[in-house]
Amino acid sequence: MTSLTVSTQDTADGAPAEADLPSFDTVRAAAARLEGVAVRTPLLEAPLLNERLGCRLLVKPECLQRTGSFKYRGAYNKISALPDAVRKNGVVAYSSGNHAQGVAAAAQVLGIAATIVMPADAPAIKMANTKGYGATVVTYDRYTEDRAMIAETIAEERNATIVKPYDDPFIVGGQGTVGLEIAQQAAELGVTPDAVLVCCGGGGLVSGTALALTHEIPGIPVYAVEPEDFDDTKRSFETGRRESVDPNARSICDALLSERPGRITFALNRKLLAGVVTVSDEEVRRAMRTAFTDLKVVAEPGGSVALAAVLEGRIDIKDKTIVAVISGGNVDPALFAEALAS
Amino acid sequence: MTSLTVSTQDTADGAPAEADLPSFDTVRAAAARLEGVAVRTPLLEAPLLNERLGCRLLVKPECLQRTGSFKYRGAYNKISALPDAVRKNGVVAYSSGNHAQGVAAAAQVLGIAATIVMPADAPAIKMANTKGYGATVVTYDRYTEDRAMIAETIAEERNATIVKPYDDPFIVGGQGTVGLEIAQQAAELGVTPDAVLVCCGGGGLVSGTALALTHEIPGIPVYAVEPEDFDDTKRSFETGRRESVDPNARSICDALLSERPGRITFALNRKLLAGVVTVSDEEVRRAMRTAFTDLKVVAEPGGSVALAAVLEGRIDIKDKTIVAVISGGNVDPALFAEALAS
Repeated sequence: MTSLTVSTQDTADGAPAEADLPSFDTVRAAAARLEGVAVRTPLLEAPLLNERLGCRLLVKPECLQRTGSFKYRGAYNKISALPDAVRKNGVVAYSSGNHAQGVAAAAQVLGIAATIVMPADAPAIKMANTKGYGATVVTYDRYTEDRAMIAETIAEERNATIVKPYDDPFIVGGQGTVGLEIAQQAAELGVTPDAVLVCCGGGGLVSGTALALTHEIPGIPVYAVEPEDFDDTKRSFETGRRESVDPNARSICDALLSERPGRITFALNRKLLAGVVTVSDEEVRRAMRTAFTDLKVVAEPGGSVALAAVLEGRIDIKDKTIVAVISGGNVDPALFAEALAS
Repeated sequence: MTSLTVSTQDTADGAPAEADLPSFDTVRAAAARLEGVAVRTPLLEAPLLNERLGCRLLVKPECLQRTGSFKYRGAYNKISALPDAVRKNGVVAYSSGNHAQGVAAAAQVLGIAATIVMPADAPAIKMANTKGYGATVVTYDRYTEDRAMIAETIAEERNATIVKPYDDPFIVGGQGTVGLEIAQQAAELGVTPDAVLVCCGGGGLVSGTALALTHEIPGIPVYAVEPEDFDDTKRSFETGRRESVDPNARSICDALLSERPGRITFALNRKLLAGVVTVSDEEVRRAMRTAFTDLKVVAEPGGSVALAAVLEGRIDIKDKTIVAVISGGNVDPALFAEALAS
């Protein structure tokens, strides 16, 4: 854990009112919109891994989702819920990775224009994929320009809607369908999970998943997992305010590098989560190898933190049934090969 | 294609009588035994890959099956169908790879002893996994000893049953549940596949899959795909007799290195398949990369030949709906990293 973290208090805006927060109904409505549109990813398990761990581990592989991450769920839910007259003007998003692809693909399926603001030095493959889904990509210099400002200018010019990466009830609701499916699939297997672990960047996936799971299985402990130098949600839990990460913090988990928790996501997570744990980059690489060896899925670094927390025993797993979400699989071949070799 | 192939005719034994062949009912009975025991692997697709290919490609990832390959289906079906008094004496199998793990895991689930005869130089990971499922491993020297003879001696001593890798109606029936699921899942998606491609070593998976698919979707073309130097089924189709591969043939597809088609599998395949195509090792590596990049699953070399045949256009795919089975994902990290880099 870093000692360089800067404590930036949540002064700009207070916590949202309870009535403004998404509810279980938000997730249920999202599930109806996503029916037949998003992949209902299976729950995977590997008997030999279970034996090594001394628990029953069920993995929800969102790397098998359309666009290779869960982000498609929230993006599609948000865009499809817009009134027709608003949606037809298109959408704008800023992201260097999975959200970009999720928004681009959802917009393509819904037949509207998408403009994605991406850093000029974003990985070529992610930019190519985003364009591949028919989106217009606008680049900016991440060291001198403000991407949110650029996105807002474009949105205003075109009367288009900005699709935020996590701090939006429809995004949280869409990601929450992961939790709803976990509850349903566990019931189909005849088991009740003792704990569920979910990665946490801005907190959209874990808050939505907790929203669904705590409704369906009251009292179930849901944990957020962060990279150790990006432990803003962990520290925010400690202080009760939205804390920011050190600008110099680094991690291989490129999908989880958000600066601080969202307003909505933090309000939900404070209420719903059992706790927050962290993992190191080396532990993430080990989890990527385990996903490869035992589960046969491609997990990107940020997608592997929940699995890493299980493998490293960050919570008590002995003789329990544990669910871990692998949130995405968009990783460069070279980085993946390096993780396999390390 | 090699020009070194030696034509060994099928003289030792004739074709089996029609009545001895597994039927669709064999597959249906297997599906009932495997219900809730084997993973119902999903049908995956990747929109960007579809666009590049100009077709709709649905992939059945049996790498996500228990033990990392489809072999668990046939092994479990065979062993669970044995009369109690026979099954309790245990089972014996010979295999250096996926069949070993499938038999060991099925025996463990069913609570009986399994002895697996493996070459002393089998990959350490495969031997460790086989032992991990509780099997006793007996090693032999693959250059001087006859594994079938060793297995038969052990089986006789213990009154145990030999579980053959493919040439057994129960094995074919179990593997055929892959085809049954493809038919069901395509129907759930509201599509009728124009063609289905399946890897072919001894022919158990492709014959069983064709048995189920041609029953459920009459007239559907099912193709076997072989490594180009292990084209024994292709050449056997040409001559009408079971031809053998050249003893000096080599391929990275370690799961598909069987010497010649099985009696049962060849009889079925002759009757049911639309054709046989082949792919090179380099094409297989490319398919492994595509499975990684676009589908986020780990495909072993032998598991990738059907996908390779689609990517290389071995059959007409233009504007069609194509299904390809990825049969397994048990591959060493080093070999996988090499395929990603090449």
